[in-house]
Amino acid sequence: MAQNSVSLHKKLKGKISITSKISPLKLGDIKLIYTPGVAEVCKQIQHNNSLKYSFTSKGNNVAIITDGTRNLGLGNTGPDAALPVMEGKSAIYSEFGKINAFPICLNTTDKNEIIQTIKAIEPVFGAINLEDIESPKILDIANELEKILKIPIFHDDQHGTAVVVLAALLNSLKIVNKEIKNIKIVIVGSGSAGYGIAKLLHYSGCKNIVVLDSKGSIYKRRKGHMNKYKKEITKFTNPKEKGLLSKVIVNSDVFIGVSGVKNLLKVSMIKKMNKNSIVFALTNPEPEVIPSIAKKAGVKIIATGSFKYNNKVNNAIVFPYLMRVILDLKIKRITMKILYDTAYAIANTVNKNKLSINNIIPELGDTRIQKKIMKSLRNTKLS
Amino acid sequence: MAQNSVSLHKKLKGKISITSKISPLKLGDIKLIYTPGVAEVCKQIQHNNSLKYSFTSKGNNVAIITDGTRNLGLGNTGPDAALPVMEGKSAIYSEFGKINAFPICLNTTDKNEIIQTIKAIEPVFGAINLEDIESPKILDIANELEKILKIPIFHDDQHGTAVVVLAALLNSLKIVNKEIKNIKIVIVGSGSAGYGIAKLLHYSGCKNIVVLDSKGSIYKRRKGHMNKYKKEITKFTNPKEKGLLSKVIVNSDVFIGVSGVKNLLKVSMIKKMNKNSIVFALTNPEPEVIPSIAKKAGVKIIATGSFKYNNKVNNAIVFPYLMRVILDLKIKRITMKILYDTAYAIANTVNKNKLSINNIIPELGDTRIQKKIMKSLRNTKLS
Repeated sequence: MAQNSVSLHKKLKGKISITSKISPLKLGDIKLIYTPGVAEVCKQIQHNNSLKYSFTSKGNNVAIITDGTRNLGLGNTGPDAALPVMEGKSAIYSEFGKINAFPICLNTTDKNEIIQTIKAIEPVFGAINLEDIESPKILDIANELEKILKIPIFHDDQHGTAVVVLAALLNSLKIVNKEIKNIKIVIVGSGSAGYGIAKLLHYSGCKNIVVLDSKGSIYKRRKGHMNKYKKEITKFTNPKEKGLLSKVIVNSDVFIGVSGVKNLLKVSMIKKMNKNSIVFALTNPEPEVIPSIAKKAGVKIIATGSFKYNNKVNNAIVFPYLMRVILDLKIKRITMKILYDTAYAIANTVNKNKLSINNIIPELGDTRIQKKIMKSLRNTKLS
Repeated sequence: MAQNSVSLHKKLKGKISITSKISPLKLGDIKLIYTPGVAEVCKQIQHNNSLKYSFTSKGNNVAIITDGTRNLGLGNTGPDAALPVMEGKSAIYSEFGKINAFPICLNTTDKNEIIQTIKAIEPVFGAINLEDIESPKILDIANELEKILKIPIFHDDQHGTAVVVLAALLNSLKIVNKEIKNIKIVIVGSGSAGYGIAKLLHYSGCKNIVVLDSKGSIYKRRKGHMNKYKKEITKFTNPKEKGLLSKVIVNSDVFIGVSGVKNLLKVSMIKKMNKNSIVFALTNPEPEVIPSIAKKAGVKIIATGSFKYNNKVNNAIVFPYLMRVILDLKIKRITMKILYDTAYAIANTVNKNKLSINNIIPELGDTRIQKKIMKSLRNTKLS
């Protein structure tokens, strides 16, 4: 696989193309799309700014922005080595959402410089997709951008991951016949993904969530390795448990791994989970546990973030479709309700009679996903 | 024309698309272009940075950057109203150069913020195209970027315009049988275009150039309305003439208008020019003189920057082809020799037997242009 991927990238020399919607461009077209004809279009936008959405691609342009500090599960690879991932996202945005998503890999890891840069390039874009930037810095960046930009900030690691996890969980719970309000969920990883998942699962009614970082479970007034986002989640998670994963996993129903650590989840830990356990081992490219091992250890439903296995709990199932709807409905801010309704819509895309332990989430490319999200969000009260 | 252009823009909602080179994208492709396959590509770039040119679109990506302060000849329209022009350029880059050129319209007009923003987004691009930013600020920006970036800075208003003017002039002089070293050239406009044209014409052997701004001719030790770029051109232009255009134009052979002022060149002025006069009225969308009026007043060869008339002295004939060659040859810096050789190559694309007063420059879309530039620059010593 790795070698095939390298060969393909070498052959393609970049996975995306920017092309003219009018092609071939004849002299008659150039007079209209360029000078002199374009001048009138410019003047009209100058005098009525909202026309930029009618006359340009702004409303369909998304910036996929990263500084390369948390590239996949590879860590800080720098901006150049992050470009192949961002181009992959761009290709997926185009293919499944008909969106112009352009990768912007930044030459800086400084929080304020990142904010200033995004602010500076705002005019061209209808939305921002923040991607693979280290936490908690990125959460500060997302919050600040929400305040100062006029366009929506979609933070895929936080928002997209939370949606796909909730969608997959809603369907998994149908299979194992458990209710979200009664289960215990262990989330390993307290970066953007863990934070976003915890918030959305809480919003969705889960009352027993324990989030862990590399130091163990996160709880109120824990000393050391805290930040304001970890503090925030202690307000609604983990009523009492202290300790490492091997301890906290006891009697849990669901394990969600967004840890960045491959093979983190051991067979001995799985055996401590409740019956009909659900494991989402979402770290990429190598999950927290290999599906076959999880199955053998007794897990009922296993999913990963990889396209190599069944149950692809990957935000690629979310971002092209949700973004299409965000742009079309001109949604200005991503709320919990939007994320919840989106997850619900995605879960419902899997027909009841097709639902199974190996089919908890629709496949990327299922054209019903976007229609379901659109139907669901059209009526959402937007904050 | 204006109304047709507005309708077309409304219909298109943006003139460019970003698409996946692999389409349709099947599950087997996604595993390779996205996770997990892409991880190996990232790792290889991380360990050997130069592979970014082999594995990504960087080497084919150009940022078209503007702050909208000098949009066409419309003045400071702001970044939103500049986007239709930048998209038009992007479409032309794609169509004639097969280049991914993405418009970046900036939310700031501050020199240092512009420099910082471009520096921050450098990793994604193989070259920068600066566009329609007010002078002299933009000349400072271009100089600074040349120092701090690793990729070439193509300043189209300066470089592209100079090349197309020289190319058209070389052919015009063949027709009127004059030599560049013996003629007097009047350039109206001392912004990026006037500055770039003056430098390149001087480099090409012209010994009598007078550049004017809105205050009249620019000369050594003129008091008021000077800047370092105007000072620079007085070192090799205008040995002695002081005064307004109506005076300076006397006995000139060539008028080059990059003034931003429509109908600036009056019939009475044209009549003071030497026999077989050449007028390039390049302001867009409305030239310094309407071609039919210029002809009637006795001009031998008239050209504009508009696609509405014959003799389209528009940098669109330069930028897609020259940029293609810059990217393919990995040229790091745009030198006078590169600009001169490019102009020479473009001029020579018009066959001698096709050369006429209405055909001094090849048409956009002439595929020989790029081949001629490539042949010419392949052997250029690169600084």
